[in-house]
Amino acid sequence: MADLERSMTGVAGLDEMLRGGFISGSVVLLQGAPGTGKTTLGVQFLIEGARQGEPGLLVSFEQFPHTLYRDAEAHGWDLRVLEREGRLRVVFTSPEVLVTSLQSPTSPISSAIRDLGVRRAVLDSMTHLQTITRDPVELRSQYGSLINGLRREGITSLLLSEDSGPDFVRSDRGRLAFAVDTVILLRYVEIDSVMNRAVAVLKMRGSDHDKSIRRLAIVRGGIQVQEPFVGREGLLSGTPRRAG
Amino acid sequence: MADLERSMTGVAGLDEMLRGGFISGSVVLLQGAPGTGKTTLGVQFLIEGARQGEPGLLVSFEQFPHTLYRDAEAHGWDLRVLEREGRLRVVFTSPEVLVTSLQSPTSPISSAIRDLGVRRAVLDSMTHLQTITRDPVELRSQYGSLINGLRREGITSLLLSEDSGPDFVRSDRGRLAFAVDTVILLRYVEIDSVMNRAVAVLKMRGSDHDKSIRRLAIVRGGIQVQEPFVGREGLLSGTPRRAG
Amino acid sequence: MADLERSMTGVAGLDEMLRGGFISGSVVLLQGAPGTGKTTLGVQFLIEGARQGEPGLLVSFEQFPHTLYRDAEAHGWDLRVLEREGRLRVVFTSPEVLVTSLQSPTSPISSAIRDLGVRRAVLDSMTHLQTITRDPVELRSQYGSLINGLRREGITSLLLSEDSGPDFVRSDRGRLAFAVDTVILLRYVEIDSVMNRAVAVLKMRGSDHDKSIRRLAIVRGGIQVQEPFVGREGLLSGTPRRAG
Amino acid sequence: MADLERSMTGVAGLDEMLRGGFISGSVVLLQGAPGTGKTTLGVQFLIEGARQGEPGLLVSFEQFPHTLYRDAEAHGWDLRVLEREGRLRVVFTSPEVLVTSLQSPTSPISSAIRDLGVRRAVLDSMTHLQTITRDPVELRSQYGSLINGLRREGITSLLLSEDSGPDFVRSDRGRLAFAVDTVILLRYVEIDSVMNRAVAVLKMRGSDHDKSIRRLAIVRGGIQVQEPFVGREGLLSGTPRRAG
Amino acid sequence: MADLERSMTGVAGLDEMLRGGFISGSVVLLQGAPGTGKTTLGVQFLIEGARQGEPGLLVSFEQFPHTLYRDAEAHGWDLRVLEREGRLRVVFTSPEVLVTSLQSPTSPISSAIRDLGVRRAVLDSMTHLQTITRDPVELRSQYGSLINGLRREGITSLLLSEDSGPDFVRSDRGRLAFAVDTVILLRYVEIDSVMNRAVAVLKMRGSDHDKSIRRLAIVRGGIQVQEPFVGREGLLSGTPRRAG
Amino acid sequence: MADLERSMTGVAGLDEMLRGGFISGSVVLLQGAPGTGKTTLGVQFLIEGARQGEPGLLVSFEQFPHTLYRDAEAHGWDLRVLEREGRLRVVFTSPEVLVTSLQSPTSPISSAIRDLGVRRAVLDSMTHLQTITRDPVELRSQYGSLINGLRREGITSLLLSEDSGPDFVRSDRGRLAFAVDTVILLRYVEIDSVMNRAVAVLKMRGSDHDKSIRRLAIVRGGIQVQEPFVGREGLLSGTPRRAG
Repeated sequence: MADLERSMTGVAGLDEMLRGGFISGSVVLLQGAPGTGKTTLGVQFLIEGARQGEPGLLVSFEQFPHTLYRDAEAHGWDLRVLEREGRLRVVFTSPEVLVTSLQSPTSPISSAIRDLGVRRAVLDSMTHLQTITRDPVELRSQYGSLINGLRREGITSLLLSEDSGPDFVRSDRGRLAFAVDTVILLRYVEIDSVMNRAVAVLKMRGSDHDKSIRRLAIVRGGIQVQEPFVGREGLLSGTPRRAG
Repeated sequence: MADLERSMTGVAGLDEMLRGGFISGSVVLLQGAPGTGKTTLGVQFLIEGARQGEPGLLVSFEQFPHTLYRDAEAHGWDLRVLEREGRLRVVFTSPEVLVTSLQSPTSPISSAIRDLGVRRAVLDSMTHLQTITRDPVELRSQYGSLINGLRREGITSLLLSEDSGPDFVRSDRGRLAFAVDTVILLRYVEIDSVMNRAVAVLKMRGSDHDKSIRRLAIVRGGIQVQEPFVGREGLLSGTPRRAG
Repeated sequence: MADLERSMTGVAGLDEMLRGGFISGSVVLLQGAPGTGKTTLGVQFLIEGARQGEPGLLVSFEQFPHTLYRDAEAHGWDLRVLEREGRLRVVFTSPEVLVTSLQSPTSPISSAIRDLGVRRAVLDSMTHLQTITRDPVELRSQYGSLINGLRREGITSLLLSEDSGPDFVRSDRGRLAFAVDTVILLRYVEIDSVMNRAVAVLKMRGSDHDKSIRRLAIVRGGIQVQEPFVGREGLLSGTPRRAG
Repeated sequence: MADLERSMTGVAGLDEMLRGGFISGSVVLLQGAPGTGKTTLGVQFLIEGARQGEPGLLVSFEQFPHTLYRDAEAHGWDLRVLEREGRLRVVFTSPEVLVTSLQSPTSPISSAIRDLGVRRAVLDSMTHLQTITRDPVELRSQYGSLINGLRREGITSLLLSEDSGPDFVRSDRGRLAFAVDTVILLRYVEIDSVMNRAVAVLKMRGSDHDKSIRRLAIVRGGIQVQEPFVGREGLLSGTPRRAG
Repeated sequence: MADLERSMTGVAGLDEMLRGGFISGSVVLLQGAPGTGKTTLGVQFLIEGARQGEPGLLVSFEQFPHTLYRDAEAHGWDLRVLEREGRLRVVFTSPEVLVTSLQSPTSPISSAIRDLGVRRAVLDSMTHLQTITRDPVELRSQYGSLINGLRREGITSLLLSEDSGPDFVRSDRGRLAFAVDTVILLRYVEIDSVMNRAVAVLKMRGSDHDKSIRRLAIVRGGIQVQEPFVGREGLLSGTPRRAG
Repeated sequence: MADLERSMTGVAGLDEMLRGGFISGSVVLLQGAPGTGKTTLGVQFLIEGARQGEPGLLVSFEQFPHTLYRDAEAHGWDLRVLEREGRLRVVFTSPEVLVTSLQSPTSPISSAIRDLGVRRAVLDSMTHLQTITRDPVELRSQYGSLINGLRREGITSLLLSEDSGPDFVRSDRGRLAFAVDTVILLRYVEIDSVMNRAVAVLKMRGSDHDKSIRRLAIVRGGIQVQEPFVGREGLLSGTPRRAG
C-alpha cells in the first residue's frame, strides 16, 4: 500500500507488527483487560514522541496523579522532566471538561495542544466517557465528535478502552472499533497454568499489518512485544487449547 | 437457474463465488466485524461500476471524509477524479437526511441518482440507521422502506452492516438478512495463532452460489478472495478447531 | 398409525420424510435462518397444489412483489399464469389486515379463499405478526386465532418463521411450535469449510416421520431433500464435530 | 421405601422406571419440547386409568378439539366412547376459568370431578397459566393453589409443561419442579444425525426410581419407553458426544 | 484448626466430609436442584438432633403438610411422634410471618424456640423469601437479619435454597453463600446415561473439610453420601467428560 | 523495576508471587467466590502488619462479630489482644457510615486511623458498597473516592470483593479492577473430582510478579500458597481439562 507517514510507538515489536508504527494522524483504539499494559503502552508512546520531537498530551480520568508518575518512574521514565521541557503535558480532568475543552479554543487543553504543538495524544480511558451519557447512540455520537476533533488536528491518538471480553465487538459499547482507524487488542491468555499477555492488531486502515497473535511482556523499561504464540487454538478466547 | 443480469463486484474471487457477480438490481447485505474490509469492498464495487459505465453512489454516515479518500488512495483509487468525471458521487450525511431524501425527488441525493444515472449504491453503514429509532419493529420498517426504494430504482445496492457475532441472525437487529436478496458474511478466524479473515455467501435469491468459506485478504489494490479453508471445524465461530 | 389424507409437498425427499406429505388440513411450521429456502419451499408447495387441483393462497408481508415473481421464474415457475388460471392467489398485505380479514367473511382474503376454493396456504412470515403486539402472551393468542382459523377451513397451511437459533424452542417467541401440528427446521451446518443446509422434521402430530437430519439443496427447479448427514455430532448446533 | 399405592401410566417402560407407576394422589410434572410426546403420554395415562376404573379429566387450553380426538384416533383411542361411558371428561377452557372453577364447588369442572369420581387428571399445559399473571411470584402462588387443590382431592395429576431447555431449572418459570412430587423430562437428543427422544425421571418424592436416561418412541398405540442410551456424554444437553 | 463443638447431621458420609458434622451454632446453606434431596437431608438432620437431645424446628413455606409427613414416613420417620414428644416442631407458615415472628419474642415461632429449647432449625426454603421483596439489596438485608437472628440464638441452622445452576455464585440471588458459614451443593451429574446426584462442601468457616465431590443417594432411611467420583472432568457443570 | 517499599502479606508463597509483598501504600483488590479464603487472607495480612509494627484497620459490613473472632481463633489468632494493644482496630459498620466517616476527620474511623497510626486496611467487602447506589457510574465514582482516600493516607489496602465468575472483568460491577494497583483472583478449580482453590496475581502496577496459577490451601494458621498447577488447560474457567 502507499507509504504513509508513520509514528513509531516506542515498542519495536509492535512497530514491526504495524509495518513501521501508527499511521501519523490516525486514531488508534487499544482495548484490554485491567493489567494488560494499556497505560504503560500509552506512556511509552508519548515518551517515544518526546524523543522524536513530537510533543504529547496525556489525558487521564482515573489515575491518582502520584501513581501515574510513580509507575512511570518504575520503568525509568521521568514524566515531570518532560513536562518541564515542554515535550509532554499530563492533564487530570473529567470527561465532561475534556469534551467541552476540545470545543473551546481558549480552554487549557486547547491551549496546551496549540502551545506545545501536540502531535500525539493518549486518552486514559474512553470508558470514562460513559459517565457523560447512558444512551449508546448519544455515546457513539460523543465518541465520533472526539475522534473527528483529533483527526482535524492531525494528532496521532491512542484511545485506551477497558471494554474487553472474548467477543470484542459485543463488549464495545459505543462501537469505537468501527469509528477508529486501527484496533489493537490486549488479552490474558492462560497457557500451561500461567497467565500470559497477548497482543493482536485487528484492523489498520490504509496499511498492511501483521495478523499473528504475539506474546506481550511488561518489563522494566516498558512493554515488549515478542514472538507469536505457537500450537494453540482459541488464543483470543483467553483459554486456548493445544492444537490437535 | 435463469441467467439473470449480473453486476461484477471487482473482486474476481467473489464474483466466482457469486457465479458472475451480484444480480443486477438486487440488494446485498455485507455484514462484518470492524476491519474485515467492508468499506474497502464497497469502494471496490463502485470503482468496478465506474469502469463498466455504471455510475455509483456512496453514502457514508461515519467516515471522516479525508480518511475515506486517503484509504482509497492507499489502494491506488482516486475517488475525486471519478467524482469529477460524473462516475461517482460520495455523500456524507446523516441517517435522517438519507431517509427523507429518498422520499423527496428534489433532494440532492435523489437529484444525484437521477442526474448521474446511478446504477450502484453503497450504504456505510446500515447500523447507523439505528439512531433513527430504538424500536426494532419501527427499525425493520425503516429498513424495508429503504430497501424497497432501492429496488424500485433498480440500483444494485450493497448495504454494509456492523452487526456481527457467532450467531449472525441474533446479532441482526432489524432483521436485515431476511429482507435483502443476498447475504455475505466477513469474519475473523483465528488459525495457527494468526487472525485470518473469512468470507461466506450465505443467501442468494434467484441464483446458485459457492457455499464454501474462503480466505479474504486486504492487499494494495483492494480485497482478494482466495481459496477455501481446509481441515477446520467451526470457522464461522471465529475460533475453529482442527478437524478430528 | 391411521392412514390420514396427505398433501404432497412437491419435494420428493421431504414427502418421504413425512411418510407421504403433510397431513391434509394440518398446520405446519417451517422455521429457518435467512437463505435456507423457506420461501422457495413455500412456493413449491403451492405449485404442487396447483398441479394436484388444490388451489393455493400465498400471503406475503415482506417480499417486494417483483422479487417474488422473479425468484420463482428463476426456478421455472410462472406464478402469474397460475394466478390467471385461478389456481393461486398471491396477496401482499400487512399483518393487521390479514388478521382482521380472516375474521370478516366479506374481506378480499376471505373471498379469495371461498372463490378459489383454497386448499393450501403459505404465510410469509409469521414473524411479521410481531408488529401487531409486543406482548408475548397476546402474540401467542393472535397466533392461536390464526391457526384455529386455518384449521376450521381445513386448509393445509405452511407457516414460515424467521425465528431460528441453536435452541429452537427459546427462539420461538409466541411458542408457535407448541400450537402447530408439524414442525420442520431448516439450518445452516458448517462441514468441511462449506455452509450446508439441513432439514429436520421435529414433530408431526398423528403420524410417524423420519427422524434423521438430511441435506437440503436449492437448485434450479426448487428444493431438494437429499441423504442424511453421516458421522457428525451436533448438526443442529450449526457447527458440528466429526463423531469421535 | 414404603409401599405406596401406585397408578400405572399405561407405558410399561415408564412404570418400570417409576417402580410401578406414579404414586397415587401425587402431582407429576412432565416437561418437554414440542413434539416430544407430552400430550400423547397424558392421554395414554387417562386411557389406562379408564381401563383400571379410575375416571380421568383432561383439561386442554390449546388444542383445537378436533385435533385432539383425531390424534388420539391415530393411536387407536376413541376418546368419545370413553366420554360417553363416563370414564373420561375432556374440557376445553381458559386458564382463568380453570382456576376459578376449582375454587367453586358448583362449577362444571368441580361437578365433573365429583360426578365422575375423577381419580386422574391431565393439564395441557401449565405454561398457559402464564397468561393469568406476568409476575413470577404471583405465578408461583397460582401454581401452588392449583397443585394443593389437586392434592386435596387425592387426584393423581400429570401437569404438562412446555418449559424446556438444557438447564431445566432455569427454564422453569414459576418453579413448578420444586412444588410437585415427581419430575419427568422429555428431550430431543441428536445422535448419529438422527433426532431421538429421551426420557428421564429426575425427582420422585417418597419412592426410588430408575436414574437412567432412556429412549422414548412415539408409535401407533402411543409412547414406548425403551432401553437406556449407551456410550454418550451430555445427553440432556441435546447434543451429546460419544464417550471418550 | 480448633476443636469446635459439632452437630452431627445424621448422614455418616457427610459428617465425615465435614470432619464431624456442622459447627454447632453455625448457619449452613444447602443449595440444590429439585429432587436432589434437600428436604430429606433437612428432616434427617432434625431426626438426628431429636435423637441427640437437640430439639428441632422445621419451617416450611411450600410443602403440602400431608406430603411432608408421608415422605418422612417413606423413610421410616414418624414426625408426629417427635412433635408429641416435644423434640420437633413443624411450622407451615409464610415468609412474611416468619420474618416478623423472629422479631417478636411473643410470636408462636419465638415461643416454640424458647419452650422446646430449639437447637437445630431447617428453613424450607430461603427462595420463598424472594416473595417479600423484589429488590436484591433489600433481599440481602432480609437474609442478613434472619441469619444473624439464628446466630444470636446459637441455633445450628440449615437453610435450603432452590437457587442452582452451573455457576452457583451467579444463581445465588441475595448472595446467601457469602453470608453463611458453610455452603453445601447438591447437583445432578449425568454419567454413563444415568442421572447421578453429587454433593460438595464448598465453604466451611472455621474448619477443614473434604474437598472431593461425592456420590449422594436417596434410599429408604434417608440420604447416603458415598465415595468420590473418579475419572471425570467438569462434574459440577452437570455434564462431565471422561478425563483424558 | 524500581525497588519500591513492600508490605509483606504474612503468606510466604504469596509474597514470593508478589516479589516481596504488596507495594506499600498501594490498593489491592482480592476477588473471589465464597469460601475461597478472602477474609482469612485479609486477617492474616493485618496480623502480619501487627507483627511488623504496622497497625491495621479491619472494616467489616457483613460478619456477625462473634463469627469473625471465632474464625480467627480457629487459626490461632487472638484479635482482641491485638485490639487491646492498639495494633488492630475492628470496625463493624455500614457502607454509608464508612463513606461519610472517611470524609470527616473527626469521625471514629478517621480518629482510629490517626490515633493508631494505621498503615494497613482491609475492607470486607466492597460488594456491600453496592447498597449505596444502584447506578454503576455513581458506584464507580464512590469506589474512586474511597480508593483515592486510602492512597492519600498512604495505607496499604486490601479490598475484598465477592464479584467473581469465569470472566472476571464482566463480573466486576463498578470496574474496581481498573482503578486499583494490584488484582488477585481466588477461584475454585475442579480437578480429579476435588474442589481445589487457586490464586493468580493478574495485575501489579509498578512491579513484576509471578504469572502462574498456584494452589491455595486454608489450613490451621491461615492461607498457604503452594506450587503452580501443572498439565491443565482452562484453570480460571473453574472446570479445567487435562492438557492434550
